[in-house]
Amino acid sequence: MNAGSIRLYSYWRSSAAYRVRIALNLKGLPHEIVPVHLARDGGEQHKPPFSDLNPQELVPVLLHGNRILRQSMAIMEYLDETWPTPPLMPATARDRQRVRALAQVIACDVHPLNNLRVLQFFENTWNVPQAEREAWVRHWIQVGFEALETTLCDNPSTGAFCDGEVPSMADCCLVPQVYNAGRFGVDMAPYRTIRRINEACLALEAFDAARPENQPDAPAGS
Amino acid sequence: MNAGSIRLYSYWRSSAAYRVRIALNLKGLPHEIVPVHLARDGGEQHKPPFSDLNPQELVPVLLHGNRILRQSMAIMEYLDETWPTPPLMPATARDRQRVRALAQVIACDVHPLNNLRVLQFFENTWNVPQAEREAWVRHWIQVGFEALETTLCDNPSTGAFCDGEVPSMADCCLVPQVYNAGRFGVDMAPYRTIRRINEACLALEAFDAARPENQPDAPAGS
Repeated sequence: MNAGSIRLYSYWRSSAAYRVRIALNLKGLPHEIVPVHLARDGGEQHKPPFSDLNPQELVPVLLHGNRILRQSMAIMEYLDETWPTPPLMPATARDRQRVRALAQVIACDVHPLNNLRVLQFFENTWNVPQAEREAWVRHWIQVGFEALETTLCDNPSTGAFCDGEVPSMADCCLVPQVYNAGRFGVDMAPYRTIRRINEACLALEAFDAARPENQPDAPAGS
Repeated sequence: MNAGSIRLYSYWRSSAAYRVRIALNLKGLPHEIVPVHLARDGGEQHKPPFSDLNPQELVPVLLHGNRILRQSMAIMEYLDETWPTPPLMPATARDRQRVRALAQVIACDVHPLNNLRVLQFFENTWNVPQAEREAWVRHWIQVGFEALETTLCDNPSTGAFCDGEVPSMADCCLVPQVYNAGRFGVDMAPYRTIRRINEACLALEAFDAARPENQPDAPAGS
């Protein structure tokens, strides 16, 4: 691996990996995608070589040369600091706070409640039926999206995207969460601003190329 | 309220509010604590005036003059950008990435699974018995701490604190999570590095003053 080369350990349907794929595309950074299959054989994330890269056994991991970078939001901030143009973060402390807070509504308070390991715990340890597991997922997406919709539509900083007229880290988090909402049948009708921003994002090549169905490890017909 | 004054909406036992209390103390910033009682009358966070400040109905919220700031990690980064000395974040992009990633192991992948609204959902919607709810809390703390312990003890950047010899945003997240672990009876014996860092932090006045039991809204004898 070259000193400056970028390798992203990803899974096509992981929404945390999807965020970083978007960020890499927005920056125009050449990179290699290394698929980690989260379901096959009990999950490749739980075995070497991947588990040596991340003791949390979660994707994504990004290698930049020999640097091992974990946690999707921390990776995106690193990409933005290392390659500042085009920016993923706004210019002022106030606006950066807002973008980080919007991203964290999703990346702290929605997604971790609904990811694979949590749903596996419910299925295997508590024997929660599938219908209730899916209702749980929808519940937390709806709670998060209601707050996010209010926050976005009340604020003059919201533009074509979450913050103004260029995509930011907040949009990198929003679009994968809307994808998840679709998988679980969340009614998106109440979230007009979220839908509008999601559509504006997906019209961009950087977002489109990062979609789950456009990944090398996506099953045929997905 | 003066233009530059700081007001923190907090609850003594909220670990997300505890993080920001530490950060404010480390920066030496004068501030007013406004208690929001998360249990009384169904939770003051669900009613105006607090719910007008945060549609997520979660603490903490920080007011800086008339700016409304939400999400504990985003608030801490704002404090650090606005008052850079002493720093909460290291000097290089690589080290900042590491500190953010350590913070996010806790603030994304442990704490949101265990906070009040999730435990209330289990109790009220799924009728999960208390013993199982508490086992759930311990499970995710243990999963997170195992990964964190490995990450910390394997890395030469770890010093007296999570990153080197001064407290950072990662320590502001770690100490409240160790407090939570104590509340729920997690056996801390396996986490030698976490215990050592937690003790180093709590020896500092900034951390000590932020402890739940030292808050104005802590019940007598807590």
